[in-house]
Amino acid sequence: MPAHDSPGSSLAAVRDARPLVHNITNHVVMNTTANALLALGASPVMAHAPDEVEELAAMAGALVINIGTLDQPWIAAMRLAALAVGRAGRPWVLDPVGAGATGLRTRTALGLLALGPSLLRGNASEILALAGEAGDLPRGVDSTVGSEAAAEAATALARRAGCVVAVTGAVDLVTDGSRALRIANGHPMMTRVTGTGCTASALAGAFLAALPDPLAAAAHALAMLGLAGERAAGGEVGPGLFQTRLLDELYRLGPAELDEGARIS
Amino acid sequence: MPAHDSPGSSLAAVRDARPLVHNITNHVVMNTTANALLALGASPVMAHAPDEVEELAAMAGALVINIGTLDQPWIAAMRLAALAVGRAGRPWVLDPVGAGATGLRTRTALGLLALGPSLLRGNASEILALAGEAGDLPRGVDSTVGSEAAAEAATALARRAGCVVAVTGAVDLVTDGSRALRIANGHPMMTRVTGTGCTASALAGAFLAALPDPLAAAAHALAMLGLAGERAAGGEVGPGLFQTRLLDELYRLGPAELDEGARIS
Amino acid sequence: MPAHDSPGSSLAAVRDARPLVHNITNHVVMNTTANALLALGASPVMAHAPDEVEELAAMAGALVINIGTLDQPWIAAMRLAALAVGRAGRPWVLDPVGAGATGLRTRTALGLLALGPSLLRGNASEILALAGEAGDLPRGVDSTVGSEAAAEAATALARRAGCVVAVTGAVDLVTDGSRALRIANGHPMMTRVTGTGCTASALAGAFLAALPDPLAAAAHALAMLGLAGERAAGGEVGPGLFQTRLLDELYRLGPAELDEGARIS
Repeated sequence: MPAHDSPGSSLAAVRDARPLVHNITNHVVMNTTANALLALGASPVMAHAPDEVEELAAMAGALVINIGTLDQPWIAAMRLAALAVGRAGRPWVLDPVGAGATGLRTRTALGLLALGPSLLRGNASEILALAGEAGDLPRGVDSTVGSEAAAEAATALARRAGCVVAVTGAVDLVTDGSRALRIANGHPMMTRVTGTGCTASALAGAFLAALPDPLAAAAHALAMLGLAGERAAGGEVGPGLFQTRLLDELYRLGPAELDEGARIS
Repeated sequence: MPAHDSPGSSLAAVRDARPLVHNITNHVVMNTTANALLALGASPVMAHAPDEVEELAAMAGALVINIGTLDQPWIAAMRLAALAVGRAGRPWVLDPVGAGATGLRTRTALGLLALGPSLLRGNASEILALAGEAGDLPRGVDSTVGSEAAAEAATALARRAGCVVAVTGAVDLVTDGSRALRIANGHPMMTRVTGTGCTASALAGAFLAALPDPLAAAAHALAMLGLAGERAAGGEVGPGLFQTRLLDELYRLGPAELDEGARIS
Repeated sequence: MPAHDSPGSSLAAVRDARPLVHNITNHVVMNTTANALLALGASPVMAHAPDEVEELAAMAGALVINIGTLDQPWIAAMRLAALAVGRAGRPWVLDPVGAGATGLRTRTALGLLALGPSLLRGNASEILALAGEAGDLPRGVDSTVGSEAAAEAATALARRAGCVVAVTGAVDLVTDGSRALRIANGHPMMTRVTGTGCTASALAGAFLAALPDPLAAAAHALAMLGLAGERAAGGEVGPGLFQTRLLDELYRLGPAELDEGARIS
C-alpha cells in the first residue's frame, strides 16, 4: 500500500478544519449535497452567479463542479469559478455527470477538464467517454460498465490531464496515473437513490480542502461514503430509509470506525 | 372494464424494461422525482439545456414535462424536447402545474398541449382551466375541487387534444375520450407533502415507456402510487416519515401485491 | 412582555387561514420549504418567472424572498415580486442568505431591503453586514457570531428600514426597533441540516399572512420551528432522522403544546 495517513486521521482533519466547500452543482442533488457536507462536518455553500463565484473561490477551501443539470449560463459560471479557484491555488473537483450521453456534456466536461481540476470523479462510462473511448456510453447518467473496465482509461486520463481520477462503482478506483488505490466499501442500495456519485464528489471536495495529498483524500472520502452506505443499508432497508440513515451515518461515523471499516488496497 | 393487462403485469414490464425517463421538471421536486423513478425501477435523467434535450429525446423511453417552476428559457427547452420526442415517436407526459393560476402557466400548458402529449395529468382545477372552464381556478398549485368535477371537461379535452387525460384527486380519473377508468387508491397524507402529483406524472412516464396502451399505463401508474401511499401512511405517520416510507413502498411493492391492492374500475 | 396573542392562538389562526405563501427561494431548500409549509398547514407556491410573479403577488397571502442561490434573472424577478406585493399591501419576508459573504449578496439584500419588507430574517453575521458593521462576516452562509452580538445592529436596522428584524441563532431575537422579543426554543441539530433558517423565514411568511402584528407573528413562527426542532431532536438522533421528524413535528404540534413549550421573553 502506498504511504498515506489513515482514512480515520483524514476524517478527523476534515472535521477539525470544517472546510467551506463551494458547490456549483445540479438541481437534483443540491439539498442532498449540502446535507451530506453538513453531516460530515464541513460547511457547504451553493452559488452559481458569475458575479460572485470568483469571490467565493477566494474564500472556500475547495470547489466542486458538477454538470448534472447544466445549461449555458451555468457552464459560464463553472468556467469562471474553476479559473478563479485555480488562481487561488485551491483544490477543485470535477464531476462530469452524463459525459458521453450527450455532446453538450462531453464537450463541457472536456473543456472544464482542460482547466486543471485536482480530482475528476465519474462512473466508468463517463471516464471512458472523457478518455476518448466510445462504445460503453452511459445510459442517461448511469454507467453501463463496472469501474474496472475504465482502469486503463483512468490511468491514461490522469497522466494526460495531470489530475487524480476516481472511477466509482461496486469497487472504486482512484489513480494519479502512477499510483492506484481501490476502495471496496459500498452497498448496492447506493445505486437506487439519486445523487450518490454527486455526494462522493462533494465529500471528496471537503477531504481535498483539508488534506495535502489528493490521491489519499479522494480514497478516504470514498471509503467514508462507502462505509456509511454499508451501515445505512443494514437490515431490510428501502431507498427512503436508506437516505435518512446515510446522513445519520455520515454524521456518526468516527475516525476509529472508519479506520476499522475502510477496505482500501 | 375495458380489456387491459393487470397493473401487476404492467409493473413487471416497467421493472423489466428499466426505461430511461427524461424529465424537464420543476426545482421543487427534482430530487423527489428522480428518487421515485429509481425506487420504482426506472432510470431518470434530468436535463433542460436546449443544446441537449433533442439528443436525449432520441435516447429516452419517455419524456415528462412539468411546468411547476417555469420560466422562458425552460419553456423554450420544453418545446424543443416535446417536438423531438414527438418526431422520435416516443410517449411524453405533460404536467400543467398551476394552469389556471397565472396566465403564463395557462398559456404555456396550452401551447405544450398543442404539441401532442400522450398523457396530460393534472388536478381538477388545472384540467378545468385547460378545458376552458373557468370558475374553479386552482389556489396556487392546489386544486379547489374534486376530480369528478372535471370528468366531463377531461373527456372533452381528451377528444379535442387526442391524448389521454388523467385527473388526480381522492379518486383519480383517466380517460382517452371514450373509455374511462377510475382509480380509488391513495391517502389524504399525499396532499400534505409536496410533489405527489409530479411523482404521479413521472411514474406515468415510466409506465408509458414500457407499455403499449397509454390509458392502461396511466391508470396502472396511478394505482401503483396510490397503493404505495396507502401503505406508507399506515399507522400514525407524519409527512416526514410518510415521504421516507413512500419511496420504500415504491421500491418494495411487487406485481402480485399491486394486483391485489389496486382499485381500478 | 408586550401585549400579543399567544403563540398557540397564532398557530391556530395560520391553520385556519391556510394561507397561500409565494416563495422565490433558493435551489437548495425549495423542497424542504414547500414541505415545511405544507406540514404547518399553509399552501406553498414556488414561482420565479418575471411573467407571473406580479400575478401571484395579487393572489398570495404573503411573499418570501430568499437570496440563497441568487443570479441576475432571479434578482430581477425578486424585485418585481417585492414591488407587486407591496402595491397589494401584503406582507413579505426577506431572507438575505450570505449577505456580507459576497458583494453581490450584500448589494442585492440592501436593494431588496429598500423595497420595504415586513420582516427581515437572517443570522447575526448577515444582519451585521446589512447594518453596515463589517468585521464578523459570515463564513459562506453560516454566521460566525451569536445572535446577541447583532442585537444593537438589529434594533438600528429595524428603525432605519421600518420593518421587523429577526436574528436567529441559539436564542432568536425579534425587534421592530422599539419592542424586542427573545425566543429560546431550538436545538443545536438545527445547524447540522441545511435550510433551517430558510424554513424559519418561510414559516414566518405563513404567520405574517394570517396575523396582524408582524412582531408577534415572527416570534411565534420562530417558537413553532424551535419547539418542533427540540421535539424532533429527542433521543440520539442524526441529521437524517432529524429532518424527517422535524416535518412530522411541524405537522403534529398543536396550539396548546406550542403555548406550553414556547419560551418567549
